[in-house]
Amino acid sequence: MNHVEVCLTPELIHQFDLNNKIVVAVDIFRATSCMVTGMAHGVEAIYPVATVDDCFRLGEEKGMITAGERGGAKIEGFTIGNSPYEYMKDEFKDQSIVVTTTNGTKTILASLDADQILIGAFLNLRALADYLSTSRKDVIIHCAGWKGTINIEDTLFAGALVEEIKSSHQLNGDASLMALQLYKANAYNLMETAMQSAHAKRLTAFGIGKDIEFCMNQSLYSALPEFKDSKLQIIP
Amino acid sequence: MNHVEVCLTPELIHQFDLNNKIVVAVDIFRATSCMVTGMAHGVEAIYPVATVDDCFRLGEEKGMITAGERGGAKIEGFTIGNSPYEYMKDEFKDQSIVVTTTNGTKTILASLDADQILIGAFLNLRALADYLSTSRKDVIIHCAGWKGTINIEDTLFAGALVEEIKSSHQLNGDASLMALQLYKANAYNLMETAMQSAHAKRLTAFGIGKDIEFCMNQSLYSALPEFKDSKLQIIP
Repeated sequence: MNHVEVCLTPELIHQFDLNNKIVVAVDIFRATSCMVTGMAHGVEAIYPVATVDDCFRLGEEKGMITAGERGGAKIEGFTIGNSPYEYMKDEFKDQSIVVTTTNGTKTILASLDADQILIGAFLNLRALADYLSTSRKDVIIHCAGWKGTINIEDTLFAGALVEEIKSSHQLNGDASLMALQLYKANAYNLMETAMQSAHAKRLTAFGIGKDIEFCMNQSLYSALPEFKDSKLQIIP
Repeated sequence: MNHVEVCLTPELIHQFDLNNKIVVAVDIFRATSCMVTGMAHGVEAIYPVATVDDCFRLGEEKGMITAGERGGAKIEGFTIGNSPYEYMKDEFKDQSIVVTTTNGTKTILASLDADQILIGAFLNLRALADYLSTSRKDVIIHCAGWKGTINIEDTLFAGALVEEIKSSHQLNGDASLMALQLYKANAYNLMETAMQSAHAKRLTAFGIGKDIEFCMNQSLYSALPEFKDSKLQIIP
């Protein structure tokens, strides 16, 4: 039987052997939720990059839409910020977006040793779980957290995904068990619990409470983005 | 109001500002449980040291009892291993013990920037909570985990302690909320949950399941050891 493990922050990812495994990168508020939303709305490709400079440069060189945030706020001069609603625009269809965020892009770029990197969010939970269940590969759910610290919304998602795939993937390590228990204890009040997170409070202070509500929607989309050759594209 | 935070592994302790705070060092299976047990049974002082060599040297120089483990197993040539039952011996009364363990001693020694370092275990939960509640200091519960990874038994204890002091200490950070929720979801089957931990399974393989059961006893002792001047002594 294959295994599923949970890494609660990129600062602990060095403890995991990514070799030959599928990593699911997760940043519920809001990077991976935005990515799934964008791809579901017809964005051609998304390029996650580490720095604001890289983002500007690629945007200019390749005529891409620039997106992202630092500390939760939109970056001056970028086309869009980090709201899933911004990723739904009609004019972005078949376009490419280059994005940098505080935690989410870092998490993807820290997973490069994996056999495959998938983008996970509540928004594509069902599609992701179905794919993993039949993958015959070990899975590591890599939570972005907030600046290296653990956060509750990514852990809740990890627990929800563990719950969905536990018949095909045995739990490995205490973090997977803890995430599952946290999810089960909150399965009927996910939104309320997510709103208690430090990150939600930070974002609410930016006036983007509606983003948070949107990001907690389960399985709204079937889009399953994969990171490969520097960019995200949908698995057909 | 004062705050309580939870650090789930020493690998994340750099994210916390220990300055002017009380750190509670926790390694339920078994280092801090042993320390509380020993001090409760009349051991004069316990010296946690980082290496096996330091342990041998101090044991020889000062005539101390040598104690500890590596990878869960007793160290060849040491007087005792890392079982709380070994710390109960009559002949250790008024003696000093020098100890090194895989995770517990490291956690204590990684907390030196704190204003005060206390030793926590289920065994002295009530005494610890009473002390902290009236301390008027912010508290960081520093879980030892297992070789840098998070473990369920230390997190359960962190949650139990947060529950006990939450009327005097406001929760700060998502890890404290997660620990509290994990504890609450398991408050009526702590032993069963602890037995599911990877560490418990490792220890059971060493044939020391009875140690685990003992370590999950709540408030058996009022002994509250403090680490100061390189050693643990009971707060009068």
